[in-house]
Amino acid sequence: CTPGCSALRPAPPPAPPPRPSPPPAATRAARPGSRGRQAGAPPRRRLSRCCAPAHPWSPLRRRGKQSDPTVHGVADRVVGVLGGGQLGKMLCQAASQMGIKVAILDPLKDCPANSVCHEHVVGSFNDGDAVREFAKRCDVLTVEIEHVDAVALEKLEKQGVVCEPKASTIAIIQDKYRQKGHFSKFGIPIADFVEVDTLSSIENAGEMFGYPLMVKSKRLAYDGRGNAVAHNKEELSSVVSSLGGFEHGLYVERWTPFAKELSVIVARSRDGCTVCYPVVETIHKDNICHVVEAPAQIPEKMKKLATSVAEKAIKSLEGAGVFAVELFLTNDNQALLNEVAPRPHNSGHHTIEACYTSQYEQHLRAILGLPLGDPAMKAPAAIMYNILGEDEGDSGFVLAHQLIKRALNIPGASVHWYAKPEIRKQRKMGHITIVGPSMFDVKAHLDRLLQRDTDGPKKVRPRAAVIMGSDSDLPIMKDAAAILEKFNIPFELTIVSAHRTPERMYAYALSAKERGLEVIIAGAGGAAHLPGMVASLTTLPVIGVPIWTKSLQGTDSLLSIVQMPKGIPVATVAIGNAENAGLLAVRMLASRDTELSDRLVVDADSRNG
Amino acid sequence: CTPGCSALRPAPPPAPPPRPSPPPAATRAARPGSRGRQAGAPPRRRLSRCCAPAHPWSPLRRRGKQSDPTVHGVADRVVGVLGGGQLGKMLCQAASQMGIKVAILDPLKDCPANSVCHEHVVGSFNDGDAVREFAKRCDVLTVEIEHVDAVALEKLEKQGVVCEPKASTIAIIQDKYRQKGHFSKFGIPIADFVEVDTLSSIENAGEMFGYPLMVKSKRLAYDGRGNAVAHNKEELSSVVSSLGGFEHGLYVERWTPFAKELSVIVARSRDGCTVCYPVVETIHKDNICHVVEAPAQIPEKMKKLATSVAEKAIKSLEGAGVFAVELFLTNDNQALLNEVAPRPHNSGHHTIEACYTSQYEQHLRAILGLPLGDPAMKAPAAIMYNILGEDEGDSGFVLAHQLIKRALNIPGASVHWYAKPEIRKQRKMGHITIVGPSMFDVKAHLDRLLQRDTDGPKKVRPRAAVIMGSDSDLPIMKDAAAILEKFNIPFELTIVSAHRTPERMYAYALSAKERGLEVIIAGAGGAAHLPGMVASLTTLPVIGVPIWTKSLQGTDSLLSIVQMPKGIPVATVAIGNAENAGLLAVRMLASRDTELSDRLVVDADSRNG
Repeated sequence: CTPGCSALRPAPPPAPPPRPSPPPAATRAARPGSRGRQAGAPPRRRLSRCCAPAHPWSPLRRRGKQSDPTVHGVADRVVGVLGGGQLGKMLCQAASQMGIKVAILDPLKDCPANSVCHEHVVGSFNDGDAVREFAKRCDVLTVEIEHVDAVALEKLEKQGVVCEPKASTIAIIQDKYRQKGHFSKFGIPIADFVEVDTLSSIENAGEMFGYPLMVKSKRLAYDGRGNAVAHNKEELSSVVSSLGGFEHGLYVERWTPFAKELSVIVARSRDGCTVCYPVVETIHKDNICHVVEAPAQIPEKMKKLATSVAEKAIKSLEGAGVFAVELFLTNDNQALLNEVAPRPHNSGHHTIEACYTSQYEQHLRAILGLPLGDPAMKAPAAIMYNILGEDEGDSGFVLAHQLIKRALNIPGASVHWYAKPEIRKQRKMGHITIVGPSMFDVKAHLDRLLQRDTDGPKKVRPRAAVIMGSDSDLPIMKDAAAILEKFNIPFELTIVSAHRTPERMYAYALSAKERGLEVIIAGAGGAAHLPGMVASLTTLPVIGVPIWTKSLQGTDSLLSIVQMPKGIPVATVAIGNAENAGLLAVRMLASRDTELSDRLVVDADSRNG
Repeated sequence: CTPGCSALRPAPPPAPPPRPSPPPAATRAARPGSRGRQAGAPPRRRLSRCCAPAHPWSPLRRRGKQSDPTVHGVADRVVGVLGGGQLGKMLCQAASQMGIKVAILDPLKDCPANSVCHEHVVGSFNDGDAVREFAKRCDVLTVEIEHVDAVALEKLEKQGVVCEPKASTIAIIQDKYRQKGHFSKFGIPIADFVEVDTLSSIENAGEMFGYPLMVKSKRLAYDGRGNAVAHNKEELSSVVSSLGGFEHGLYVERWTPFAKELSVIVARSRDGCTVCYPVVETIHKDNICHVVEAPAQIPEKMKKLATSVAEKAIKSLEGAGVFAVELFLTNDNQALLNEVAPRPHNSGHHTIEACYTSQYEQHLRAILGLPLGDPAMKAPAAIMYNILGEDEGDSGFVLAHQLIKRALNIPGASVHWYAKPEIRKQRKMGHITIVGPSMFDVKAHLDRLLQRDTDGPKKVRPRAAVIMGSDSDLPIMKDAAAILEKFNIPFELTIVSAHRTPERMYAYALSAKERGLEVIIAGAGGAAHLPGMVASLTTLPVIGVPIWTKSLQGTDSLLSIVQMPKGIPVATVAIGNAENAGLLAVRMLASRDTELSDRLVVDADSRNG
C-alpha cells in the first residue's frame, strides 16, 4: 500500500491472472499473422500500409502459457475502454508510453482515441451486445464516459469479467439523483435536494429551498446540459419543459452560492488504497470547464477539508481507478460535494505535465492492480485552458489555430489537440497546459495567451524586494539592489515607512507573498521597527539591515532589529552591510534553483581568489 | 526568434506551404473512405476492427484549398520519419499529443513506432526507391537514425522535398571520419584523429598518438559497435581484423582520458535559431548509455563551455531539428566533441518528464517551422536509466519486469516500455526516468531501484542542519530543532567546533550543499566564529544564533556573529532565540514549497490568535 493510504473496506482479492483467449472473431480470422520479418530475412520492399494492430493480439498470453505467464514490460493485460473521446485518447497515450495495450469501443470511426489505441472496435458503449462482444477481448474493462450500459456491465461482472470501477459505481454516478442519495446516505456534505415529478411537487420544493432554484435532469447530463435555473415560481413550468418534462426524470437542488469551485482527483487501487491529487480550482464559463488552476489558491485548512470530503466520497464507491470529485467551497468555508466522475476528468488534464504521475497513468495503474504513483506536483504551478470551438467549420479551426500559435510562443505551454474531425461551438477541441515556477508566472503567461497583457511592457514577477523607511537609507540600501541586479534577480525597491505610512506598510507586507515575492530586505535605522513589523505580517523570510546612526553608530538599529520576540524572526546582517543582505537573499533564492546556485559558486570563487 | 537565440547563417526562406496531394497509391485506392458516421446517423452496430489511419489522409489539404489552407490544430503537414524504433515511437507520442500526423518508414512490421504512428510504410530507410516512394506522402522528411540513404535524400531535396535536417548533415554525420574532418575544419575542439588504410599507416599513427589507441569504423557505428582499442603495436592487426579490415574504412583517434562524458541537446529552428537543453552527464557501461544525470553535476563554467562547443558544432551543420552533441570533459577542463547525432537521442529521454518541452516535441516544432519551446527543466533533477536486455527470451522479460515492478513503487519514476517483440542481451527495451526535488533524492531513488540501498533503514535527505560549537549550547539550540521537527523537516544536529575540530568543520561546510542541505543554523557564544566560518565555506544560507554569555550577556556573541565583512552574510537572530532561527529556516524552505508555506501560514495564524 502507498504510504499514507488508508483503506476503509476489506481488501478485495488480488487481480486475477489474464483470462483465457477469446474465441477468434470473424474480423480477426481474416487478418494475416504479422510478427514482422524473421531475423536475417531481407527487409520487405513492397510499400504497403499496415493495419493496426500489427502486433498479434497479446501473443504470449495466447500461447498456452496460462500457468506461468511471462509478463512483457509493465503489464500484458489488455485494457478495454468504453468510449474513445479525448479522455480515451489520453489514456491511450499514457498506455503507449508504458507499452500497455488498450482497446476502445466507440461508435465513431474517427474518434480521437482511434489514432493511438491498440485496437478500435466500432460500436456503441451504450449497447449491451456490443459491450459483451467487446469484453471478450479485454482483461479489464473501464470507462472514459459514465453514460454506458451499466446493466450489461453488471451482468458481465457476474460472469467474471473484471470491471474497474465496478458497475455499481457507474450505475450510481450516471443517475445524478441516485448519486446525491448515495452520498447523502454516507454523510458526505451536499446541497439539499429533492425529486420532483409534478408541478405541485416542484412548487413545494421552490417554497422549501427558495429561489433561484436549480432544476436538474437525473441522467445524461454533462457540461451544464440537463441543468436549468428557475428564478421564480412562474418560470418553473418553462424550465421543466426545457429539460424535457417530468417524464425525463428531474430533481431540484437548493441554490449554492459559492466562493470557488474545486476539484480533487482521487485514485483508488484494487486493494482499496487511495491517494489524492492536490486540490485544484476550476473556473467555468457557460457551465463548461474553462480554466483549471493547480494548486488551488486557498488556505491549507480548506484544502484539507476538500480532500477529506473527496476521499470519503470515493471510499463509499466500489472499484479501482481515478475519480474526479467536484466541490463547492462556500462563503462560510464549507466544502459541498457537487458531483463525481468515475474516470479521468477535465480538471486533471494538467497532471500530464505538472504531476509526477498523470491521472491517465494513475488510472491504468489502479485498474491493472499496479501500485499507485505519486500524485504530487513536480512543478510549483500549472494552469489548464480548454480550447473550445468558437465557431463551426473552417472559421472555428482558424480561431483555434490562432490560439495555438500564441501558445507555441509561451514558455512552459504544452498544446494538446484532440484531432476531432469536426468543430462545433463550445466543443472541447484541445487544451493548453502552462507549467511554471509560480502561480504568478503561469497567470502572466495565460494573460499573454489570451492577449490580456497588451497594456504596458512585459511584466516580470519580482522575486525579491528592497524596502526602507526613508529615502535617506538609499545610499546604504542600494548595495543590496546592486547584488540582486548582478545576479539578474527581478526585484522591486520602494519606500515603506512603519511610522509615516503604516497602512501602506500593512498592505504591502500582507500582499507580498501572493504577489510572488520570495524574500524581503528591509533597512531601518534608530528604533528600527520596519523589518520586525513586516516579518510579523508575512511568512516570507525578512532580512534586516541596521542603518548607521549618528548618536549610537547603529547599535540601536542593530539591537532593535535583531532582538525580535519568539515567533517573529528577522535575519539580521551587520550594521550598514546591505551588500551582505543582498547576498543572503541570493543564497536563499538559490537553494532550490540550481542555475542561480551555480552562479553563486562562481561569484564566491571569484571573491576568494 | 526565441529570446537569446543567435543565428550564425542567413535565415533560409520560411517553410513552404504543404505540397500538393501525392498521386493515389495502389494500396490507398483499396481503402474505403472512412470519415465515420454522419451526424445523426445511428451508431454502427457491427463490430469491426478499424484500419489505421481512420482519418482520411489530411482531408483539408487535399480539398484544393492550396491558396489559403485552414490549419487543423497545431499543424496539418505530415511528418515522415525514416526509422520506427523507440526514438520514432517517442516522436509519434509527442505528435499524438499535438494531433500531428507522423508516417514511419521501417522494415519491421512490429517496430516500436508501429502502434502509435499515423501510418507505417513497411520498407527500408536505406533503400533509395523506398525512401522516394515514402517521401511522396510526407510534407517534411526527417530521421530517427542516421544510417539512411543520404544520397537518395540529396536527390529528393533537389526535387523540392523538404528534409530536416538537410541531407548534407546526414551525410556528414553517418561517416564518422568525415564528421571529425568537418568539425575540425570549423574549429570545434576534438581529439586528434587520422585516417588509416594500411598496417604501416596505423603503426605510424600509433607512434604519433601513443597507446592505448582508439580504432574506429567510419560508418554504421553505434553503441560502441565499430570501436576497438589497441593497447600496443602488436594488437593493431587483430584489432583491424575485428573491425572488418581496412577495406571497411577505418580511422584512429588519440586516446582521451576524460573526467566525465557530457551531452548537450541543441535544437535548431528552420530560421536558424538555436536553443540548448541543460548539460547532462552520460554514464556508459560496455559502451552503451546506462544512466543520464540531469543536470550534470559540474561547475557552471564547465556547463557554459560544453554548451558553447555544442552550439557552435550544430551551427556548422545545415537544417532544423534537435541534435545531440556528446562531449568529453577532460581532466584539464577541456570540452572535446566526441560525436553528434542529427536527431533525438538517448541522452534526452529525460526531457519528456523533466523539461518544459521534450526533445521529441522540440524536434517536431523545429522541422515544421514552429517556434522552439522552452528547454529548461521544470523539476530540479532527473535521472534516466536504460532498461537493457539482460538475457534472451522469456528469462530476459522476467528480469526486465522485476526491474519495472520496483520502478512502479518509486515516487517520481516513469516507466517507458518500447514493446519490442524480442529481447536480446544489451538491447534497449525501455527506460525509466526518475524526477525529483534534488539530485540527492533522485539518486537515492535510483539506489532503491537498483537495490543498492539494502543496508540500514531508508535514508532521508536532511534539508536543514543545526550545528553548534559545544554540547553546552544544546539547551538553547534544541529550540531550533523543535521547530524543524514540528514542521516535519528532516534535519541533522551535530557538534562542529571551529576551534577544536577545524578540519571536521571545513569538511562539513564544504560538503553541506552536495549532501542536499538547504540551510544551516549555527549557534555560538563568546568570540563566536562558527557561523561566519561556515558561511565562508558554503553558499547555503547560514543562520547564526548568538549564545548568552556570563560576562557580556551575549552581546559579544551577537556582535561577532552579525558584524561579518562584505561577501560573507550570516542571518543573525536575537541572543539565545534559536526558536526564531528555526522559524527563519522554515520560512526560507517554504518560499518555493507551497505545502510547507501553507503550514507556516496556519502556524502564524495560531500564534496570532
